[in-house]
Amino acid sequence: MKTEDVNEEDMLAPAMAKRFIEAVETEDLEVIKEILSNAEADDQRRFVGMLGGKERDHLCSVLTTEEAAHLLGNMAEAQAVDMLEDMPADRAAHVLEELGADLSGDLLRELDEESSEAILAEFDDAENCEEVRERASYEWDSAGGLMSDHVVSFRQIATVEDVLKELGDHAEDYSDDEVQYFYVVDGEHKLKGVLALRNLVLGKRSKQIGDLMIPDPATVNVEDDLEELQDAFERKKYLAFPVVDAEGRLKGIVTRDAMQEALSDAQTDRYLKASGIVGGEELRSMPLKERCIRRLAWLGPNILLNLLAASIIASYEDTLQAVIALAVFLPMVSDMSGCSGNQAVAVSIRELTLGIIQPRDYIRVLFKEIWLGLNNGIVLGVVLGTLAAVWKDNIYLGLVVGGALMLNTILSVAIGGLVPLLLKKFKVDPALASGPILTTVTDMSGFFLVLSLANLAMGQLV
Amino acid sequence: MKTEDVNEEDMLAPAMAKRFIEAVETEDLEVIKEILSNAEADDQRRFVGMLGGKERDHLCSVLTTEEAAHLLGNMAEAQAVDMLEDMPADRAAHVLEELGADLSGDLLRELDEESSEAILAEFDDAENCEEVRERASYEWDSAGGLMSDHVVSFRQIATVEDVLKELGDHAEDYSDDEVQYFYVVDGEHKLKGVLALRNLVLGKRSKQIGDLMIPDPATVNVEDDLEELQDAFERKKYLAFPVVDAEGRLKGIVTRDAMQEALSDAQTDRYLKASGIVGGEELRSMPLKERCIRRLAWLGPNILLNLLAASIIASYEDTLQAVIALAVFLPMVSDMSGCSGNQAVAVSIRELTLGIIQPRDYIRVLFKEIWLGLNNGIVLGVVLGTLAAVWKDNIYLGLVVGGALMLNTILSVAIGGLVPLLLKKFKVDPALASGPILTTVTDMSGFFLVLSLANLAMGQLV
Repeated sequence: MKTEDVNEEDMLAPAMAKRFIEAVETEDLEVIKEILSNAEADDQRRFVGMLGGKERDHLCSVLTTEEAAHLLGNMAEAQAVDMLEDMPADRAAHVLEELGADLSGDLLRELDEESSEAILAEFDDAENCEEVRERASYEWDSAGGLMSDHVVSFRQIATVEDVLKELGDHAEDYSDDEVQYFYVVDGEHKLKGVLALRNLVLGKRSKQIGDLMIPDPATVNVEDDLEELQDAFERKKYLAFPVVDAEGRLKGIVTRDAMQEALSDAQTDRYLKASGIVGGEELRSMPLKERCIRRLAWLGPNILLNLLAASIIASYEDTLQAVIALAVFLPMVSDMSGCSGNQAVAVSIRELTLGIIQPRDYIRVLFKEIWLGLNNGIVLGVVLGTLAAVWKDNIYLGLVVGGALMLNTILSVAIGGLVPLLLKKFKVDPALASGPILTTVTDMSGFFLVLSLANLAMGQLV
Repeated sequence: MKTEDVNEEDMLAPAMAKRFIEAVETEDLEVIKEILSNAEADDQRRFVGMLGGKERDHLCSVLTTEEAAHLLGNMAEAQAVDMLEDMPADRAAHVLEELGADLSGDLLRELDEESSEAILAEFDDAENCEEVRERASYEWDSAGGLMSDHVVSFRQIATVEDVLKELGDHAEDYSDDEVQYFYVVDGEHKLKGVLALRNLVLGKRSKQIGDLMIPDPATVNVEDDLEELQDAFERKKYLAFPVVDAEGRLKGIVTRDAMQEALSDAQTDRYLKASGIVGGEELRSMPLKERCIRRLAWLGPNILLNLLAASIIASYEDTLQAVIALAVFLPMVSDMSGCSGNQAVAVSIRELTLGIIQPRDYIRVLFKEIWLGLNNGIVLGVVLGTLAAVWKDNIYLGLVVGGALMLNTILSVAIGGLVPLLLKKFKVDPALASGPILTTVTDMSGFFLVLSLANLAMGQLV
């Protein structure tokens, strides 16, 4: 790309965006179509993102089925799901039939059961409907959910002659397919082997392809999850694996590219969950009520955990009353420890992802983090303790505050390092639960340490 | 992969890990080599991760250059960089020469200038050295940093005959290369066109390939960043783009696969930065001192920001003294608002990544977030306010606490939604700076709101 192109686009986009919204408001179909057909996919996403729900529904209703399918195909998945939800079931079914089984299944998977069944019931083509239903039934990050059905297979009893004739006669049908390799199956569509294009071309015309194929190729199973796929692609430098079901029947191929894209989506998912965006991605174009409820679903349990931590402070009211300066340091100690603990959480989650540690390595992780916590705890404790001592001209206040921060730092990095391992062991998503567990525990221990140490030193503090 | 395989590995790994560490401790070279050569790449990463710095250096020193290069190639990048740093410069140079220019450049890029130059000075092959230096000079997430040099090009004046002869005579030299497409260059290695293998094979033997090629192919520039690459791959459904420099000379190809992997790494980077792991990935096998300093580099500024926020509490000591119950609610209000604001940060960063919003959309974002903040603020404020009122049997305490949480929720989601847009506009990494800015502002405003509202209602609170 040349830089000038990008700049030109940057200048064009605001004018186009304004014209687009005006056109949707005035229902100017011609202008809408013109702008959408000239816009890049990312501008299309942005334009559609600017529309309110009513305007967007209107836009979808004025497009032809083909145009709506094309637009949906260019949206971010969360946007496309959102648009689909708002379409009448029969319209949605026709748009999905246009989109192909893979993408349709991926979108339907994200709808609730009822809407999804209502749409599937409106499919014209029963076979297509079954394909989409099957695709939607796989987890998004499994081989079945990531595979492409653009795969060319032939029966092992076919001859080279037969295959070449079929390819020649229906060349246009195969234009979308990956045709460097063909897959060889038996009468029950069970995968028997793989055949490179060059071996086909160089083979004797009368030979059966079952005799030319490489038998028993490496495969992945439809149920294999992302971690297993990652291992498979690391083990073999293939660009794609054939995907088979439990009976060994060929279902599709999963490419290295699709695996990498899924990894990137999984990282995004982790970041969003760790930030408290749970129950699916949120877009600002979603209805306010839905956005509020989703965010509150995370904040609600958090308020309870916060209450738990705050109850520690409540039980030390007398101590606080006597040394009011402590109230200044309570949030600091809990916040600083939370930050230290979060660093340990991130390192553990990262090392788990890279395969450098496993849940059973908890003793090593604990030992390493305690040692680091002691070091950083001393540094941070001395800094904060000195500030406290100087501020109130009381060395004991410094000892209480600094000591509490030091001890709480050790505790929080140890817990932060361990929690992801334990959660992973018990099959809970570490990205989702590590943060709240860590924050609650370190808040409680931080408040407790400051206030109980202050209680011990009370004679020197007042 | 079959499930039984995975289970078997799971059982084998601990025994292998134990034997591995023993072998390194007793310097049992045979056992070390045997275990490493039988282990999968992820087990290798885990085994090496278990070693202390001294043991790891010893391991590197007993392997042959080829073995060390192979091991390094299987490590996570952060591990490989770490191992390289600890090798003598001449040893490191030989290992890198074994690894190939692409991977070597990627590793050297992460070293400091001095170590990197020391290693480059020990390269045996001057041409190889220049290639590695050039690779290391590109940003890791630019086309130049992601491209592969496994690309086959021919002069446009070559005939089909010449090319076929060259390919036939040196077949083994091209076995690693992507040979579905050949690139056609002029005498100055400027890219002129692209030639599909099938067109070459079907072409008249005496024809110059300049006449068979597709001229002026789409390209990317070595300096193009990840966002530009993403756009390019979205615009065209290619599996790879040729990469050219400013003069149009062919430098390599960048595959869709490599772009996806980089995206996934960028997401990881964002997550780590948002969690306070800055200045590069941390592994627990790194020296304690380095890990402490890196983590403190993030915690240090944080302690200052925390002090700033706490100073608000300090200036209201009299209010707190009068109504000690407020101390219980200060951390709750600031923490809850922080959580709400973080959700808005995550949604903004996500929408920026997807291209649904741009920095110039700040008014729409602000409006949407204020509206949501009002809703969630009322819900959370009523809950916390009711609890406070019931606990101390004082409706005014409830009004103060609930009101402060409501107002601070609106403020924090508005700021949380905006900050990533502003940081992006001013070219600061939103993942790095959004969190601390948000936390400091919402802590300060939360403390201020609780304490100043309490001041106003003081007559009713005591």
